Amino acid sequence: MSERAAIDQAAYDVLFTTARTQNKWDGRPVSDDELRSVYDLMKWGPTSANSSPARFVFVRTQIGKEKLRPALSAGNLDKTMAAPVTAIIAYDPRFYDELPRLFPHSTEARSWFAGNEALAEETAFRNGTLQGAYFIIAARAHGLDCGPMSGFDRGRVDQAFFAYSGWKSNFLINIGHGDVSGLFDRSPRLSFDEACILD
Amino acid sequence: MSERAAIDQAAYDVLFTTARTQNKWDGRPVSDDELRSVYDLMKWGPTSANSSPARFVFVRTQIGKEKLRPALSAGNLDKTMAAPVTAIIAYDPRFYDELPRLFPHSTEARSWFAGNEALAEETAFRNGTLQGAYFIIAARAHGLDCGPMSGFDRGRVDQAFFAYSGWKSNFLINIGHGDVSGLFDRSPRLSFDEACILD
Repeated sequence: MSERAAIDQAAYDVLFTTARTQNKWDGRPVSDDELRSVYDLMKWGPTSANSSPARFVFVRTQIGKEKLRPALSAGNLDKTMAAPVTAIIAYDPRFYDELPRLFPHSTEARSWFAGNEALAEETAFRNGTLQGAYFIIAARAHGLDCGPMSGFDRGRVDQAFFAYSGWKSNFLINIGHGDVSGLFDRSPRLSFDEACILD
Repeated sequence: MSERAAIDQAAYDVLFTTARTQNKWDGRPVSDDELRSVYDLMKWGPTSANSSPARFVFVRTQIGKEKLRPALSAGNLDKTMAAPVTAIIAYDPRFYDELPRLFPHSTEARSWFAGNEALAEETAFRNGTLQGAYFIIAARAHGLDCGPMSGFDRGRVDQAFFAYSGWKSNFLINIGHGDVSGLFDRSPRLSFDEACILD
């Protein structure tokens, strides 16, 4: 029997309730050690057959930001150039080559995806996206703020960053410490009865 | 300036480090109030333009489980029939009709997606998947265990559950209290240097 405790309201707030998508940054940096620690937490989140297809590029330098610039939509440009780190959440369409090591319970796992490109792509996109969400939560758990974005040209990012690896970009996350003067008012959410059915 | 605290190691463990995908259940039930509380926490997670496309069906009854049965892969059958609750994580492809209310910052938000079916579908799938991950984390934060699965026939689930609403199934999550005798050994994860690039 599993005996796992629930976490407390203060942790709920840090992860969900008072955390906000940030648009301005207060100037405090984000260290490489913090990024490593966030990855080493979020990597434990579940994926289908432990496929772990997400790949991450942490763009911290001016040169890296300039590679991103032409791909960004106008509304995402200034806050991205100003963010201490912009993470490219990507996935490896050939994630299945790692399955003999990542999913040792089955010797056949690679063959479920190799040669079935539609299933491999769907699996990589779904599970890579789950891992992107785990990353947001794990970054918040470390006291960092996030600004996730999908307003950019995926093809341009892939050409600039993934011409050799074949990875594909999914979405971007600005990472830093937010300046709350840049916040919108909080938008409403759907109620349980609007979004959920009890069957 | 945002002054948000990091959460502690015990919370890390509940959410990620010691939490496991469960395959057996110890018989304790999951109440409707718990499901409502999990939803009311995870709903605050960020989505693109606050689009909130995820929809949830919580299958708790024998009749509901029998509607699911023909769609399940063999390996997922017994544990799903035995789970106190199986959540269908779905999305509404017409999520954009809610944007005038959900994203009041822009009067044009609906028009970004209405009439652009490919962008609407990609946005619904990506953001509905992010919300599915938030749901897993929020359920764990409530002391519940999850068993997410993508081994099922999405078309059959859509026909059985969403013929009228037009929602689309994405993945399933068994929810309950795990019996650790059903666990596999924990599989390894990619190291930071395998999955990440510092640019």
